Amino acid sequence: MTQPVIELLQSHRSIRKFTEQPIAESLLRDLISAGQSAATSSNLQGVSVIRVRNPETRKAMAELAGGQTYVQQAAEFLVFCADLHRSGWCCEQSGNTVADGMTEHFIIATVDVALFAQNVVVAAESEGLGICYIGGLRNDPQQVSDLLALPEHVYPVFGLCLGYPDQDPECKPRLPLEAVLMEEHYQPVSKALVAEYDETMRDYYQRRTGGKLDRVWSQEMLALLGKESRPHMRAFLEKKGFRMR
Amino acid sequence: MTQPVIELLQSHRSIRKFTEQPIAESLLRDLISAGQSAATSSNLQGVSVIRVRNPETRKAMAELAGGQTYVQQAAEFLVFCADLHRSGWCCEQSGNTVADGMTEHFIIATVDVALFAQNVVVAAESEGLGICYIGGLRNDPQQVSDLLALPEHVYPVFGLCLGYPDQDPECKPRLPLEAVLMEEHYQPVSKALVAEYDETMRDYYQRRTGGKLDRVWSQEMLALLGKESRPHMRAFLEKKGFRMR
Repeated sequence: MTQPVIELLQSHRSIRKFTEQPIAESLLRDLISAGQSAATSSNLQGVSVIRVRNPETRKAMAELAGGQTYVQQAAEFLVFCADLHRSGWCCEQSGNTVADGMTEHFIIATVDVALFAQNVVVAAESEGLGICYIGGLRNDPQQVSDLLALPEHVYPVFGLCLGYPDQDPECKPRLPLEAVLMEEHYQPVSKALVAEYDETMRDYYQRRTGGKLDRVWSQEMLALLGKESRPHMRAFLEKKGFRMR
Repeated sequence: MTQPVIELLQSHRSIRKFTEQPIAESLLRDLISAGQSAATSSNLQGVSVIRVRNPETRKAMAELAGGQTYVQQAAEFLVFCADLHRSGWCCEQSGNTVADGMTEHFIIATVDVALFAQNVVVAAESEGLGICYIGGLRNDPQQVSDLLALPEHVYPVFGLCLGYPDQDPECKPRLPLEAVLMEEHYQPVSKALVAEYDETMRDYYQRRTGGKLDRVWSQEMLALLGKESRPHMRAFLEKKGFRMR
């Protein structure tokens, strides 16, 4: 490993096509161990990772995620769950009651999961693996929960495909750094900056699709925010004990 | 940089004492750029990072975070915000209305922030810096919001201290890997495993405090989950437009 870590991080792109090469068991354990080493709020460690190998389960998840076939094909598919069940169980074992349903607890467990997963991702990419996060599991979190037998106070935040890349896509351009790094106070984005980034993204999509796709960032944001998104999430989370109080 | 990345990740520990050495401007920008390269849901890029240098603001934040003086002393202090304001503004510019208050949007922005921040952390540690996440900003998110002039649809998820370490603490032991990595289905933790980890943590705290602190993990979990935690979060988030519907 001689590539500076910052360059490794800057070279991230999602991989959606994998070779058939398996991931060595010892490497997989190292990746999870790297994930565990990430910071965790008050030592909560509110993360459980479920490794899915059963082809039927993989197929069901690929479908509910909107037909993402790489969920089936990747060497490994991991489901990252926010887990307050384990820590709550510890409290109950000593005869205590947990103050459940707090929004704050939902936030710390969700953040724990993301910090952990990103360490797994960086570790994986440093070893030549490619990855793809699968937020599409939240299309039907109840089915995921049933497939994985998730108890109360556990919810699937996202999945992660891991494998050796069989494609070499370009990195997706990001907003100019000036748009996200601010000094002392919040600074609203400027029209000029969004227009500039829109053109960058138009070029990127044109290149990637051989001129077929004409799309800019503002349009993507409208597609994402302009309509209700996974409106079942609230009720699902409540059912799982995340009442957001 | 010859240390394998996985070892770098596994060697993480929070740093709470920093030298006075500043962080070069170019390095800081590289760290943020590395953060931007993390995966983001549907290209949302729902993250804004506010760099706080004003000593008065730092002091106020150190205090509201519960007297964490390193918030004042660190070379840099960054506040990581989940930001749906920028993307929403893009939609409104084209005369469209945003479906606001969705729980799903809250989740993707919060996850975006954590993935971004963890990349910043890994980049920083690879360059010899130390870090400490400051979840304590959520003790008084309204004051943080006021100090940073955060608009609607933006909330402070956590702060981050960055600087050159002036201490060399031991890594905090984590749960055995078996507790967090599961095959096919959720696997409840065993009593034996928690008991084992409790003893590991007791030894760790004893070593770290010269025998003064007698504490185990189960007790920490009870302190965290056994009582209401930041019960103001829900109302604060609602006020900011995160209605969790």
